[in-house]
Amino acid sequence: MEICTIGGYEQVGKNMTAVKVGEDVVVFDAGIYLPGIIELQDDPSMDYSEKHLRAKKAIPDDLILDKLGWSNKVRAIVISHAHLDHVGAVPYIANRYPNAVILGTAFTMAVLDALIKDEKINFKNKRQVIKDNATLTLKGESGPIKLEFIHTTHSTLQCVFPVWHSSDGTFFYALDFKFDDYPTLGLPPNYKRMREIGKAGTKVLIVDALYSGVEKRPGGERIAQNLLEEAFSSAWGKEKAIFVTTFSSHIERLNNIVKFGKRTGRQIIFMGRSLGKYVNAANNIKQCPFYKQVRIIQYKKQVNGFLRNVEKSRGKYLIVCTGHQAEEGSILDRITRGETPFKFRAGDNLIFSSSVIPAAVNVVARDKLDRKLRNIGVRLQTDIHVHGHGSREGLREILQILKPTHIIPAHGSLEQEAPMIDLANEFGYKFGETSHLASNGKVLKF
Amino acid sequence: MEICTIGGYEQVGKNMTAVKVGEDVVVFDAGIYLPGIIELQDDPSMDYSEKHLRAKKAIPDDLILDKLGWSNKVRAIVISHAHLDHVGAVPYIANRYPNAVILGTAFTMAVLDALIKDEKINFKNKRQVIKDNATLTLKGESGPIKLEFIHTTHSTLQCVFPVWHSSDGTFFYALDFKFDDYPTLGLPPNYKRMREIGKAGTKVLIVDALYSGVEKRPGGERIAQNLLEEAFSSAWGKEKAIFVTTFSSHIERLNNIVKFGKRTGRQIIFMGRSLGKYVNAANNIKQCPFYKQVRIIQYKKQVNGFLRNVEKSRGKYLIVCTGHQAEEGSILDRITRGETPFKFRAGDNLIFSSSVIPAAVNVVARDKLDRKLRNIGVRLQTDIHVHGHGSREGLREILQILKPTHIIPAHGSLEQEAPMIDLANEFGYKFGETSHLASNGKVLKF
Amino acid sequence: MEICTIGGYEQVGKNMTAVKVGEDVVVFDAGIYLPGIIELQDDPSMDYSEKHLRAKKAIPDDLILDKLGWSNKVRAIVISHAHLDHVGAVPYIANRYPNAVILGTAFTMAVLDALIKDEKINFKNKRQVIKDNATLTLKGESGPIKLEFIHTTHSTLQCVFPVWHSSDGTFFYALDFKFDDYPTLGLPPNYKRMREIGKAGTKVLIVDALYSGVEKRPGGERIAQNLLEEAFSSAWGKEKAIFVTTFSSHIERLNNIVKFGKRTGRQIIFMGRSLGKYVNAANNIKQCPFYKQVRIIQYKKQVNGFLRNVEKSRGKYLIVCTGHQAEEGSILDRITRGETPFKFRAGDNLIFSSSVIPAAVNVVARDKLDRKLRNIGVRLQTDIHVHGHGSREGLREILQILKPTHIIPAHGSLEQEAPMIDLANEFGYKFGETSHLASNGKVLKF
Amino acid sequence: MEICTIGGYEQVGKNMTAVKVGEDVVVFDAGIYLPGIIELQDDPSMDYSEKHLRAKKAIPDDLILDKLGWSNKVRAIVISHAHLDHVGAVPYIANRYPNAVILGTAFTMAVLDALIKDEKINFKNKRQVIKDNATLTLKGESGPIKLEFIHTTHSTLQCVFPVWHSSDGTFFYALDFKFDDYPTLGLPPNYKRMREIGKAGTKVLIVDALYSGVEKRPGGERIAQNLLEEAFSSAWGKEKAIFVTTFSSHIERLNNIVKFGKRTGRQIIFMGRSLGKYVNAANNIKQCPFYKQVRIIQYKKQVNGFLRNVEKSRGKYLIVCTGHQAEEGSILDRITRGETPFKFRAGDNLIFSSSVIPAAVNVVARDKLDRKLRNIGVRLQTDIHVHGHGSREGLREILQILKPTHIIPAHGSLEQEAPMIDLANEFGYKFGETSHLASNGKVLKF
Repeated sequence: MEICTIGGYEQVGKNMTAVKVGEDVVVFDAGIYLPGIIELQDDPSMDYSEKHLRAKKAIPDDLILDKLGWSNKVRAIVISHAHLDHVGAVPYIANRYPNAVILGTAFTMAVLDALIKDEKINFKNKRQVIKDNATLTLKGESGPIKLEFIHTTHSTLQCVFPVWHSSDGTFFYALDFKFDDYPTLGLPPNYKRMREIGKAGTKVLIVDALYSGVEKRPGGERIAQNLLEEAFSSAWGKEKAIFVTTFSSHIERLNNIVKFGKRTGRQIIFMGRSLGKYVNAANNIKQCPFYKQVRIIQYKKQVNGFLRNVEKSRGKYLIVCTGHQAEEGSILDRITRGETPFKFRAGDNLIFSSSVIPAAVNVVARDKLDRKLRNIGVRLQTDIHVHGHGSREGLREILQILKPTHIIPAHGSLEQEAPMIDLANEFGYKFGETSHLASNGKVLKF
Repeated sequence: MEICTIGGYEQVGKNMTAVKVGEDVVVFDAGIYLPGIIELQDDPSMDYSEKHLRAKKAIPDDLILDKLGWSNKVRAIVISHAHLDHVGAVPYIANRYPNAVILGTAFTMAVLDALIKDEKINFKNKRQVIKDNATLTLKGESGPIKLEFIHTTHSTLQCVFPVWHSSDGTFFYALDFKFDDYPTLGLPPNYKRMREIGKAGTKVLIVDALYSGVEKRPGGERIAQNLLEEAFSSAWGKEKAIFVTTFSSHIERLNNIVKFGKRTGRQIIFMGRSLGKYVNAANNIKQCPFYKQVRIIQYKKQVNGFLRNVEKSRGKYLIVCTGHQAEEGSILDRITRGETPFKFRAGDNLIFSSSVIPAAVNVVARDKLDRKLRNIGVRLQTDIHVHGHGSREGLREILQILKPTHIIPAHGSLEQEAPMIDLANEFGYKFGETSHLASNGKVLKF
Repeated sequence: MEICTIGGYEQVGKNMTAVKVGEDVVVFDAGIYLPGIIELQDDPSMDYSEKHLRAKKAIPDDLILDKLGWSNKVRAIVISHAHLDHVGAVPYIANRYPNAVILGTAFTMAVLDALIKDEKINFKNKRQVIKDNATLTLKGESGPIKLEFIHTTHSTLQCVFPVWHSSDGTFFYALDFKFDDYPTLGLPPNYKRMREIGKAGTKVLIVDALYSGVEKRPGGERIAQNLLEEAFSSAWGKEKAIFVTTFSSHIERLNNIVKFGKRTGRQIIFMGRSLGKYVNAANNIKQCPFYKQVRIIQYKKQVNGFLRNVEKSRGKYLIVCTGHQAEEGSILDRITRGETPFKFRAGDNLIFSSSVIPAAVNVVARDKLDRKLRNIGVRLQTDIHVHGHGSREGLREILQILKPTHIIPAHGSLEQEAPMIDLANEFGYKFGETSHLASNGKVLKF
Repeated sequence: MEICTIGGYEQVGKNMTAVKVGEDVVVFDAGIYLPGIIELQDDPSMDYSEKHLRAKKAIPDDLILDKLGWSNKVRAIVISHAHLDHVGAVPYIANRYPNAVILGTAFTMAVLDALIKDEKINFKNKRQVIKDNATLTLKGESGPIKLEFIHTTHSTLQCVFPVWHSSDGTFFYALDFKFDDYPTLGLPPNYKRMREIGKAGTKVLIVDALYSGVEKRPGGERIAQNLLEEAFSSAWGKEKAIFVTTFSSHIERLNNIVKFGKRTGRQIIFMGRSLGKYVNAANNIKQCPFYKQVRIIQYKKQVNGFLRNVEKSRGKYLIVCTGHQAEEGSILDRITRGETPFKFRAGDNLIFSSSVIPAAVNVVARDKLDRKLRNIGVRLQTDIHVHGHGSREGLREILQILKPTHIIPAHGSLEQEAPMIDLANEFGYKFGETSHLASNGKVLKF
């Protein structure tokens, strides 16, 4: 078994890993790198093409597969979940692997479809929806390729751990996850199947080590649910506006917002393009329990029109909208710039069911937005949120369950991944022998 | 109305405030200051007398009341709740106020009784148990003294906000609290009565400003409950020991530990003197729902005897014990020093349902203890906890509800209290006019 | 003596204090508040008028002097030094005090003149240059107004502590300073005179408490000088560009840059408008020892022209330029945006003799700029700097020397000023009696 | 060339590296690990034997050399400098390599001799003093072993970079260093020779990466010198005591303390065992310029006797003493515990020319000591110090000069070493190919 660590081993973003057994290669994820995307957006001389994305290092440098002679052996690209740092590069690079089928759960594939459509990509690869807790066997050059997709929990719908049961041993791809035994929507992780695989033997585990240096558990989604309930119960004023903003792909969170939002007796409006995109994707696959209880307004003109109503009857609506990072063009950004008919006033409520992503651009944008709104007298409730990556405790669990022979931490800088090596020491792994730090573009043989 | 800010206005600890209206003085709280206590314990030349406690500044400097000529006017000492930084100095200073009756809820008084008994104090003041959400009228020199005790939530049983409805206006004492609308034991704060008082008019509010600089909500006890449930579900090994440690006075937390602990099917043992003291106090007043489900072992000899059983049959028991701060002489401290028949082994579980109190002595003690246990291979789960002081959000709520004329932040250093002044600005208060920073030993007139 | 704390008591910026003795008022400083200025610049509907500066809270709210009936009693506005948070509001508010003469050292007045000229203000107040370590007596309604200007050290030229020897006692204004006993240009603070004043008795001290919470000494300018020498000795490459950037008003630093810069054998070019402004002001008053050793290029067209030479012969020049905070429109900003004929290349050197001012806008701007340049391979040397405000140690010294009766910390938020109250406790001051925290717009009587 | 990374690759401490070329092995350093030493001291059942040092992991695990069959091939143990994390384990492990000569500069060897004598070790290995900027050729099994010792700067006397010019290429060992071009005692680093070696080609560089994640230069010893001068000029009171404490092995710092101390006109007394040990070692090799200007008092009885004088005539002496980390048994520790005839009083001066080593035991000990002394009114000046490890800038320089083929960061945890990998990327190194992260006990082949 050879593993090429294409991307995501030195940064948070552009995750991509290729595994070769015999004459067959399976690729896991192909995501974007946000800082590169932002640089590209800032550069008026560039558009959203593969060439420019590569120039800004916004997508994984998968040209290495050409050098290795692996490209024409890629039989499948398996996408673990619907986040852009895992699926976002697929539209731009899949055509380099014409023989590869794209595999993902229904929600992941729905999001991929939306990306392809939005960017008007001429996408030719075969796409196939997989089920979680199911297996799939592809035809390979060196025999059948047995893939399995194990349900896990993270912070969007239908996340899986893809597993390749190969003739060279079992490859287990554990990006991204936070074990949540008490999810508020959907099922807990499939521990049973993981234990079976652990007993049968896992050769290599690639694992989300982003918070491997953090001892404290983040806690499951129930915590966010409780914080949300508290936030709603202390939102003031019958005649005051109530806005909530969160990650658009976080359907479970949106479900909780709707659950408690309903108690206000207000009509619930979802506003913003990306919210519409993800919620519709969830509904298309019948995974959006709150769909009929909300009204979705996606496009600028309608948004502006509706905000005129909100301005007049602010006590009548609960608005769930985009803009938790104060992103340019988001609903919150446009409102605070004065570009909509609605203006925040003293006493209005704004709940951020999110944390600030610690990149300078977000920090400064949110700082400005928060300051502006507080000066007006808007009541902000911030950090009504728990994130979706396991800490050291969760990593102990996966090691305990899977007992893999080899471990490769991923999903961060070397400094962020290094604590996973220390943790592995606790379990008897030896650095350089059974635990490994890889940079992007390496080949490891097992 | 004159207010003397005796203690707790420049540090976390030794809270004490006196209020004078006419010829009558009411004192609110009289607590200890932990760093002073530790210095005293470190000094072999000193014992636990009033004199030495004063020398180490471990109790409030209430001699100022003599200078002011207030001492013989003190009609009552009202204790807000059972924590030592609020009640701990009472046994040493109450005799200075022979005319004062000591008032507190049943749990608070039970804890005071235990302190008096432990230290063999010859305590002569009259003691009277009050009910929460009730009023009491004392006879005063300048007319009746109408006191009210409003139920609130914090991190021990039967916490109240004492209120004095005086001829000079209403004095509201809001130390310590975290508004928890969804407590897991007992009732939420009595908002209804607070709103009534707010409407009727509050002259002065003294308020717990410890976390006034922190925007993020700590979250209610449900959060800790959920974290605990997760921690128990990931405690490994049928044949492995499970120990849990938390604050002994936190009956609600102990109740949650028992609730999830029962699921392990193990016998639940409470170990340690202070645990016994608080749990028995809670049971005496019929506020300990789990009392019959646990066995309490308080004294060294019995503890050692029982730990011999645990050593042999570690899978049979769930031990709840003292030592979350690795305090000298606590159960965990003695075990890790090898002074008991029980030794931790690889794979045993230890859950800290607490955070490290950020004083150097605790930090270093816990650092040593944690390191030792991790080296053995004990699985520590730490910070399974939320603390009991409201953040900026909770303070916004109390201001919104009570709308007091004057605000005095307390329960921290000036730097910790200063953000409350900024927050008050949001509500239109003016520093030096309607919001006030006081050091210890000042008199403010309203 | 009555003191009105007009501005700078709740933030870093817009310093302004008025002192009234009898029927005479003296104002000390009138500066701008940078975040307000940035908001104003961001708002296309606003220009640089007094009205809009007030709307954005970018200048002190001195309208309070009208309310107090003090405005027509203002005899002088004394400016302590040339920084914009002390002098920047003078052009916009001085006309409200037609009877007030503006007093400042030659450098300060030269900078004020430049501001007035730049903004084309119709400035009518009388201006008078004062000398440091000198006195001046003005005619007042209630007798002569004896002012003294004591030389101190900070981070620009000719800084003074203004002192008013009034019939009500001595008022000492100690904003801003860092005692530097070994300055690399100019003289150390006039301790001798301060000691005399201390002995004679100081009634009130207003003091720069920005770093009162920091125990460690920042160190004098010699430290920066040494760091600069190291930075120059490790700038690589005879054929590579060398750029240095620092605070334009910091003439002592610029002198050190030139001193070590000369060793490179390159021609030294100063580039940028604000550099030209301050260096010319220094030269006009014969306080710019390096003036003949550098060439100053101020305006865009000439800058672009000259940068064409630098591009071709990058080993020939040492460029000292604006842009240490990556300010929009600065030389560094324009170069990195590609708006000049010069482009940074791998191996070029850029030395930041400055620290990042910790406001979000600077942090994000510098983050972007640094990242861009590092990606190209430019060798950045950052933080070759010591700042100009004394820490706790320096504050101990001033208290020890002056032994004032009353202390009022200034130049920060209440949280930043609060540690000065603790420090004053060490010296026996009592909060609320002899040490005072004031917000903006208060009147204190002594 | 094979390199065995024995110790110091996962922690700060117990540095030890073995290099094998042909049938010859050279070992570089053999130091102790302080946390292990402290654990050993805390454990009454253990003494200072090799066995117990190994049990507490306080010395490098060099038993691996037996497993590799390298032990009997060790021809030399080269010690880079006199710090205990480099030389401290030599007395306990050298006997395992009977054929190895111990090599070090005169100061290093003098310190080693003192260790051997103190611990009464029966030390049999041959010892040979080397000169810096010199070479030495040993007879090896596979030909002559050409060693070179290049002078560098750090924070003690006579530090070298040992280099092995082997038949397999040049091995360069760069632990520990901070390039100081302007030392205040001794010479700057031998850049000339380094550049020659760089040109001739370096195969492997092992490098002190402790601060590879820190961009800002620490600055050279001149900075500390300047800070010291400031500290002395602001030490108050002719009749007050002045104490200074610093690292005993830091002869350059001690020289600066004496230089400025003399200005006080006081008699300079050095107090404490370890101060005596290092100063005498320096003097024995004629590297102690201040020796005749100070009086050294080493032993408890004399110390107590002399402190009686200091107590009486506190204005007469300047005391330089041990205890900068508040170590148990140090002079400062004993004084503050009241175990000596001298007591600190209000107004006495204590200058810490050191920083707190960030281990919990030091932090808490210093916290207690500082608090005690401040409460008395002692004037503490802390952090009058710059440390002796280069930051990212210094590491850029060594890479630029030596241009080694392979880089192995050392002297920290993996997280502390990982930023060196990023830095190496800037220079075109590739992780896993030309830049390497090793844990303890690995063998790398080049």
